[in-house]
Amino acid sequence: MINIDELLLEAYNETPYPVGGHGKRNVQVLKDAIMAFDGDTMSDMYGDGPIIADFEKKIANVLGKPAAVFFPSGTMAQQIALRIWCDRKGLKRVAYHPLSHLEIHEKDGLKELHHIETVLLADKERTIELPDVLELKEDVSCLLLELPQREIGGQLPSYSDLEAISAYCREKGIRLHLDGARLFEILPYYGKTASEVCSLFDSVYVSFYKGIGGVAGAIVAGEQDFADESKIWKRRHGGDLISLYPYIISADKNFDERVGRMAHYYEAAVELAAMFNECESVVTKPAVPVSNMFHVHASMSYEKFGAALIASYRETGVGMTPFVRGIEDEACYFDISLGDRYEGVPKEKLASFFKALQTNLK
Amino acid sequence: MINIDELLLEAYNETPYPVGGHGKRNVQVLKDAIMAFDGDTMSDMYGDGPIIADFEKKIANVLGKPAAVFFPSGTMAQQIALRIWCDRKGLKRVAYHPLSHLEIHEKDGLKELHHIETVLLADKERTIELPDVLELKEDVSCLLLELPQREIGGQLPSYSDLEAISAYCREKGIRLHLDGARLFEILPYYGKTASEVCSLFDSVYVSFYKGIGGVAGAIVAGEQDFADESKIWKRRHGGDLISLYPYIISADKNFDERVGRMAHYYEAAVELAAMFNECESVVTKPAVPVSNMFHVHASMSYEKFGAALIASYRETGVGMTPFVRGIEDEACYFDISLGDRYEGVPKEKLASFFKALQTNLK
Repeated sequence: MINIDELLLEAYNETPYPVGGHGKRNVQVLKDAIMAFDGDTMSDMYGDGPIIADFEKKIANVLGKPAAVFFPSGTMAQQIALRIWCDRKGLKRVAYHPLSHLEIHEKDGLKELHHIETVLLADKERTIELPDVLELKEDVSCLLLELPQREIGGQLPSYSDLEAISAYCREKGIRLHLDGARLFEILPYYGKTASEVCSLFDSVYVSFYKGIGGVAGAIVAGEQDFADESKIWKRRHGGDLISLYPYIISADKNFDERVGRMAHYYEAAVELAAMFNECESVVTKPAVPVSNMFHVHASMSYEKFGAALIASYRETGVGMTPFVRGIEDEACYFDISLGDRYEGVPKEKLASFFKALQTNLK
Repeated sequence: MINIDELLLEAYNETPYPVGGHGKRNVQVLKDAIMAFDGDTMSDMYGDGPIIADFEKKIANVLGKPAAVFFPSGTMAQQIALRIWCDRKGLKRVAYHPLSHLEIHEKDGLKELHHIETVLLADKERTIELPDVLELKEDVSCLLLELPQREIGGQLPSYSDLEAISAYCREKGIRLHLDGARLFEILPYYGKTASEVCSLFDSVYVSFYKGIGGVAGAIVAGEQDFADESKIWKRRHGGDLISLYPYIISADKNFDERVGRMAHYYEAAVELAAMFNECESVVTKPAVPVSNMFHVHASMSYEKFGAALIASYRETGVGMTPFVRGIEDEACYFDISLGDRYEGVPKEKLASFFKALQTNLK
């Protein structure tokens, strides 16, 4: 028996109109960036050289920080940021959301490699808000905020809460670190520049393969001494590669092309979420997206929802997701992030998909 | 005043006939690998997918091990290998050479991240030999051997010593790990296959950007359970990138092109070292190379040796090294590794360089 997961993935892969993301994650992404690039340009060498230094400086400026360091991954970059703040304060304890990337996707690297204790704030259904921070009983070196909170559909605290949390942390000697894997994606909703948001934080991580659509790679930004210290830890982690330029070149090209398009992706998410919310037994989280992403929840088994999606893909050629995750017997969800592809899907195709889905859900 | 370091680098960069290495470390290295590659090929995804799995399997076969894991760097790969062996034995102590990469180039990652104590075997002038291991006073979980020992000119123990060390370690329950950053480069001297050498070791690391000439990247090979455990630590270190294919594609292409040419590089090193040894006040270590690399030592100040090299580069267009390192007032050295470039340097150019150098050293 072929299971629903395989059928859904197969049906999705066959749709001529996938709706989410920028495109396939194939080798062409790198080819497009590298082909336009001068082959005589020298590689970076263990973190030095114009090809890495220029990009670090450019992103530091965008983020309004004195210095920035390019890392192969956000996992490495963020553990290091937290370690530095813990060492500075002489206290190996940090606070973050229970669904933080560090808590659920990194095989406990923070604990196993850095022996840092974690305090989980808020609950799994909502973002960290001011009262959560005010009620913190134990002292911590650093509070990490993920904006938007990916695992709950990309929710955000209000900007005034963010400002109040920042002021409180400064007063109490708690460093504030931004998990900004999707920072550029939330700027249209907040109506702020990257540097305005980052001014509330002591250190900031941004990713170059999510909304930006590069191959991989991350930047951490902060004061110069913080950046210098992060390079020592980058070496220790095995991230100070002789050549990081394949990621840098693709990050730089895709950043230039997409950072100005985040408002389009955000508007696309708002539009698409509204269509899902018209389907019976289906709701999005957030109800109105605040970035380019949201979750689609269905109050039925994932087999039933999956079967309805498969049928709708096949009837209309529109694909929404390759995976659905079951939560409990009668509840399931998937997440979707909007990018370049959305504009290429004809509106009537989209309408026919939702018509089909509504029928197939009955 | 311009110092000798800058002048030497500048003079070297202007030579039409640089002698060492394969070529410039520029973006063209990646372009050459990527251009020939099908853009429709899907990216690896966090360590999975044919593009990474096929290469891991291919190299596992070459090394004669059941499983292999691709890592962004050797620094990460080797710390993890040692950590696994320490955890298995419940003893956080390993032994290696005082000039091991882990001891001098990794900002103490092994100690800072893994809290592993190190016992330094042999001294800085020679490789680890059987008596060093027999005389080990403290128990260790793992002994790391670097073949060839890069920081002393690429020296090697005798193969019979290697076999005896391996047998002793197995008897005593000490795991043997191979730092084989330049493993393929020593096979012609030993007259062995990679898999024959690796059969003496429990775990093996090989690099893809030294003699192989790829962009970056490493493989660790061993038993299946060891490989599986190393993937968990790869995630913890932040090395389990969404896409490692830029390194894999260039590693694979350059491996195929160069692994069969190691005997040429080795012979080139032997030939070139003999020419250096005919110069007054200059000797190579080893006197007769055992791989594609050796060190050139001069019993004079590095300023004097540097000035003689600069003059010889300018007179003949042949370049040997961009750097010379002072050891003490009247002693200095540089290292050189032979690759594809050597065959392209006309023999008469090489002869004229050594004639000029002998004159300039007087």
